[in-house]
Amino acid sequence: MFELIKTEGRARLGRYTTAHGAVETPVFMNVGTQAAIKGALSAEDLERIGCQVLLCNTYHLHLRPGDGVVKSLGGLHRFSTWSGPILTDSGGFQVFSLAQLRNIREEGVTFSAHTDGHRVFMGPEESMRIQWALGSDIAMAFDECIENPAPYDYVKRSTERTARWLVRCRDELVQLKQRDDTVNPGQELWGINQGGTYRDLRTEHMERINELDLPGYAIGGLAVGETAEEMYEIIETVEQHMRRDRPRYLMGVGTPANILEAVARGIDFFDCVMPARNARHGHLFTHEGVININNARYISDDDPIDARCDCPVCRRFSRAYVRHLIRSGEMLGMRLAVMHNLYFYNSLLADIRAHLREGTFERFRREQAEKLSKRI
Amino acid sequence: MFELIKTEGRARLGRYTTAHGAVETPVFMNVGTQAAIKGALSAEDLERIGCQVLLCNTYHLHLRPGDGVVKSLGGLHRFSTWSGPILTDSGGFQVFSLAQLRNIREEGVTFSAHTDGHRVFMGPEESMRIQWALGSDIAMAFDECIENPAPYDYVKRSTERTARWLVRCRDELVQLKQRDDTVNPGQELWGINQGGTYRDLRTEHMERINELDLPGYAIGGLAVGETAEEMYEIIETVEQHMRRDRPRYLMGVGTPANILEAVARGIDFFDCVMPARNARHGHLFTHEGVININNARYISDDDPIDARCDCPVCRRFSRAYVRHLIRSGEMLGMRLAVMHNLYFYNSLLADIRAHLREGTFERFRREQAEKLSKRI
Repeated sequence: MFELIKTEGRARLGRYTTAHGAVETPVFMNVGTQAAIKGALSAEDLERIGCQVLLCNTYHLHLRPGDGVVKSLGGLHRFSTWSGPILTDSGGFQVFSLAQLRNIREEGVTFSAHTDGHRVFMGPEESMRIQWALGSDIAMAFDECIENPAPYDYVKRSTERTARWLVRCRDELVQLKQRDDTVNPGQELWGINQGGTYRDLRTEHMERINELDLPGYAIGGLAVGETAEEMYEIIETVEQHMRRDRPRYLMGVGTPANILEAVARGIDFFDCVMPARNARHGHLFTHEGVININNARYISDDDPIDARCDCPVCRRFSRAYVRHLIRSGEMLGMRLAVMHNLYFYNSLLADIRAHLREGTFERFRREQAEKLSKRI
Repeated sequence: MFELIKTEGRARLGRYTTAHGAVETPVFMNVGTQAAIKGALSAEDLERIGCQVLLCNTYHLHLRPGDGVVKSLGGLHRFSTWSGPILTDSGGFQVFSLAQLRNIREEGVTFSAHTDGHRVFMGPEESMRIQWALGSDIAMAFDECIENPAPYDYVKRSTERTARWLVRCRDELVQLKQRDDTVNPGQELWGINQGGTYRDLRTEHMERINELDLPGYAIGGLAVGETAEEMYEIIETVEQHMRRDRPRYLMGVGTPANILEAVARGIDFFDCVMPARNARHGHLFTHEGVININNARYISDDDPIDARCDCPVCRRFSRAYVRHLIRSGEMLGMRLAVMHNLYFYNSLLADIRAHLREGTFERFRREQAEKLSKRI
């Protein structure tokens, strides 16, 4: 259930209640693909860095350890020990980005697993069965994530099929949730809008999704090579056709600036591997911009990564120590870098919410958008 | 300062006071070669897993980030944020195990760094200057760690040189500690006994070390291929020539059984990379023996790694989850495995101390020695 608390322009302050607690929005979901955050962060760490929602992946967990295993252990919450809300991605994106030798038909997709090459079939029903077994709070619809650019006719046929798949997802989950051995009876299905960069297809697809009256919607297939301006325009187009009383999730986005701009255009949920991936390369977010901790200037720098940051890393360790760990190939370097970057994102979203509450978001966006993504 | 609190047979319960606090002995030191524990554990984690002494490495820290850098940041304690006792190994072992193209002379050793091949010279004075700059509480003497087996004549010449090096170490550290910019004025030098498997050379060398009246001693050059029985016999031989009012450190040892047997022979300090290395391979210590978490039988096992363990991992996570993480190549798997194994070692030593206090160590050793190292 989504409650719209306050708006400023198109930006929205809200609260989304799941079977595992409420989420204050706008929110950044922390990506734990295989039921763990890359960089050795556990559910216990997530509690310390202000995470509200853990995002796990259907495709990966189906391959390893298997959704049957997770279900037998009581579902993803018990398995990972994360007791807050969990969203599972449908596997659609991974089938199209990771798997080999895809064969797409109306029923679904046959592909070779990236782990060992064995053939797997996944369609809307399979994706729902896996997510139902995992017991996430929000299950995402199985969709085709189209390459960018793609021909108009292909995108049109694909979004029409994704719309048909959505009906099958809904029907399957309704059936599954009637079973006595349902892990999470409160699990909900969100639809995913596709349509590439074609506004009419995006709009048409969104109208089709609306017919199902689902509790939430995502915009997928963005941040795949188009310019930021194109992305913002598509959000503006689709957003006009999204119900105001439903949460909107922009999948896989993005930089701090992207997030500020998308919030200004009415987006509530975000996820992105960027904070973790940047951390891996020593690119650390600060309130003054992005620093590269590998830079020689930090070798004897006794200051924290970001003097204005309250994360467990900045409260205790120096830039010099974090740099030494990363340069020496110590796993701890990765852990501290990821922990800091995720905390930075989670607290950026907390700041956004505070400014929405105060009615000062627009000023905050103008002041911060450029600064936070700048390399210094 | 070492205080001998109680004995049972040759086993000793004691307390060693350093410039950064007291250490209850027997103790297992946790190996943080590059000022961090392998497996993404920080000083904060060490506080949670019962670590008393952090062991860091002169050779590695000299190469990266450089002892000058660590000194400029206030020494190893401030750098790593570990506020308890720190022991630094002298670099001798690494020069002989890691470095290439060694050239040993009376002055010291010239070698190629394992990181980038550049030529480095290290002798007793250099090792002391580095350890003085790092500011550890216990600095180890620079020694030649002899291969096993090695010819009698070579071992004899080598231990004689190591004895001469010890005098130079002591003289250098006395000089250094008079400097105003000394990081840790309470730093102490411990000698290292060598002599391969030749008892007369071991004894002779120990007598030479005794002449210097140092605050502690180590037995080096063991656990390098000789049988456990041979190792125990050498300990028995050397121990008779060690002062009772000084702590004894058995370098690089060993399995839980090795530790119990060495405690029974009068050893107080231990260190070993085994808990971390075993963790890397999924070999986890339990009170029933060693389990291999990769084993298929643990795939749906909801129990903790060790039902009798109170570590942060066993209190929260299942075998199934730890197995999944390790099998999926998630860093978090390594972190949890290392955390558990180190906690196991630290609490084994706490148990040993408790039994020494109660006068029941001998029974504990008989019951546990075989069991704890058994593969199940």
